[in-house]
Amino acid sequence: MNVNGIPYRTIWLKQDDPNTLMIIDQRKLPHQFVIEEINSLQQMEVAIKDMHLRGAGLIGTAAAYGMYLATLEIDEFSNSSAVLSTAAERLKKTRPTAVNLAWAVDQQLKALNQAASLEELQSIARNNADAIADDDAENCRKIGEHGLALIEEISRRKNGATVNILTHCNAGWLAFVDHGSATAPIYAAHDKEINVHVWVDETRPRNQGASLTAWELNMHGVPHTVIADNVGGHLMQHKMVDLVIVGSDRTTRTGDVANKIGTYLKALAAKDNNLPFYVALPMSSFDWELKDGLQQIEIEERDADEVRFIEGLCEGEIKKVLLTPESTPSKNYGFDVTPARLVTGLITERGICEANEQSILKLYPEKS
Amino acid sequence: MNVNGIPYRTIWLKQDDPNTLMIIDQRKLPHQFVIEEINSLQQMEVAIKDMHLRGAGLIGTAAAYGMYLATLEIDEFSNSSAVLSTAAERLKKTRPTAVNLAWAVDQQLKALNQAASLEELQSIARNNADAIADDDAENCRKIGEHGLALIEEISRRKNGATVNILTHCNAGWLAFVDHGSATAPIYAAHDKEINVHVWVDETRPRNQGASLTAWELNMHGVPHTVIADNVGGHLMQHKMVDLVIVGSDRTTRTGDVANKIGTYLKALAAKDNNLPFYVALPMSSFDWELKDGLQQIEIEERDADEVRFIEGLCEGEIKKVLLTPESTPSKNYGFDVTPARLVTGLITERGICEANEQSILKLYPEKS
Repeated sequence: MNVNGIPYRTIWLKQDDPNTLMIIDQRKLPHQFVIEEINSLQQMEVAIKDMHLRGAGLIGTAAAYGMYLATLEIDEFSNSSAVLSTAAERLKKTRPTAVNLAWAVDQQLKALNQAASLEELQSIARNNADAIADDDAENCRKIGEHGLALIEEISRRKNGATVNILTHCNAGWLAFVDHGSATAPIYAAHDKEINVHVWVDETRPRNQGASLTAWELNMHGVPHTVIADNVGGHLMQHKMVDLVIVGSDRTTRTGDVANKIGTYLKALAAKDNNLPFYVALPMSSFDWELKDGLQQIEIEERDADEVRFIEGLCEGEIKKVLLTPESTPSKNYGFDVTPARLVTGLITERGICEANEQSILKLYPEKS
Repeated sequence: MNVNGIPYRTIWLKQDDPNTLMIIDQRKLPHQFVIEEINSLQQMEVAIKDMHLRGAGLIGTAAAYGMYLATLEIDEFSNSSAVLSTAAERLKKTRPTAVNLAWAVDQQLKALNQAASLEELQSIARNNADAIADDDAENCRKIGEHGLALIEEISRRKNGATVNILTHCNAGWLAFVDHGSATAPIYAAHDKEINVHVWVDETRPRNQGASLTAWELNMHGVPHTVIADNVGGHLMQHKMVDLVIVGSDRTTRTGDVANKIGTYLKALAAKDNNLPFYVALPMSSFDWELKDGLQQIEIEERDADEVRFIEGLCEGEIKKVLLTPESTPSKNYGFDVTPARLVTGLITERGICEANEQSILKLYPEKS
């Protein structure tokens, strides 16, 4: 999507230097637009772990490029399979909840098995990472096409009046290589000149809604309003929301959805107010091994200081301020699981299905 | 309750100067403990409107003292009834959702009708405000006694293991004259050496949980953990919450509860997980005129900059930081309404009842 009128992806190989990855340092958004160079596996590990980049699709693609950077660190004296399996392990540890990450790393390991020489190893790793990036962007574009139909239907029902869509966190193009998952239908509708307005949950503690979703919607010119995470229920009670669309970090084959902490609360409110609650996700965000999200999905616990402190712009500089008394303890669970019974449907690159195993497998019969 | 070992109320007449009110400037908490002097109706108006003080019971008491300060501004040339009705109008406008405010102002107007002289007017206003303050503290103490029974029962069921209580916003002693409503049972249980732990919702946008509830629980030594507002549902799904207790700014005679924005979402999560969701409130927080909270309770919309900016401690100073892109619009609804069907019970100064008209009127037969 566009940044100040120039089209960008969220990750790309540096022009004239294919040993260097370029990423947008999302920690600096929305106040500064900073491009960061990544030159080693170790730098990519840090970038994923410390959330220079984040989001289901982008983490997966970044990990795939991380494996490519690892191949560049192999020389004639290395045991290449040992180097690769160590790299895979290190990358998988950076963000345990993100299924795309493990998926992308495993894709690389499988492909790299075929290599006959170091040169081939490196070119397979690069081509495979490029393909994962391109697929990610294309899948998101297709999610947008399928989700557009839902928005068009509501717009028709409202005789063209504004369709109000609530989203949580950032499942935008910043979370993928392009387009986004939850935002893809919104961008598609906006580009088709359907009146849409987005309620953007600020999404504490890291405020990805207030900082990232608001920033990217603004860059694309989509009308939106940032709200505290507490507000969505009230809006739904008063018919100020027509549709909820969120993303997912990991969805079971039965349709249980792990997503940013607080998603479950919005799903409950949508159910209580008979509003459609959709989850937009590409195939890579499914975990086909899991049947019970609440019991089986490991929930990442992050640094408590993400709750106690917050960053923002103050007198032209990014400053961190303390919100609680000095000694107050805090807990920081990164995700929650929304049970399938609260999900109206899943918007995937293959179409829309219900959040149950039978309906999901109709779209993905190869996983039966 | 105690501050650094010294017992305080939240509002009191200055020693040796009964023309001056003393309040804790809650905007400075938790980082600075500042006592502010209030010398005029106009200062009290500002203090209520700009939230130097806040909370159901404290707003009511402050408004009662505001009427007292108004009587001090009457001289022999004034039309005292015009002055008083203007003062009442000005005070009622400061925080439209707070029913205690209108109630306390009306109590004063009624009492002041009896005055035969200016001197009597002033002494009635002062005595009446003192009585409102004392009643507020005493009612909260009784709420604590009744709510204690609920906590004791859970503690017994858990064989003395820690009882985990989630609360939203600050319905603590800082919101009343003393004890608090939602916190009163917690303080009572803690003082009786029952193991309790409080999950404190930070309560964006103004963060009264992170700044006020955390501060007062810390001062009293009650174990607690601050969490983002998004976390409560996840904790309930994983049995890390035994009981929810919140306060109320306005409750209908049918048991619909207006409280800080986001309360409704926690009530939904409690219901979905079969957990008890209690609302603690004194009689003055009922609005006996209303039967339908969702339709009839006016929801205050506050300055959008409360969402876009946040204050905290940075390098020893309180600084305000911008969280969103510069131009991002925001909406700031202060309260939501939790329908009675989601409320397990109401803890009042007269005992515990169900959230329905019949059960409420059994405790308050004079309102039948």
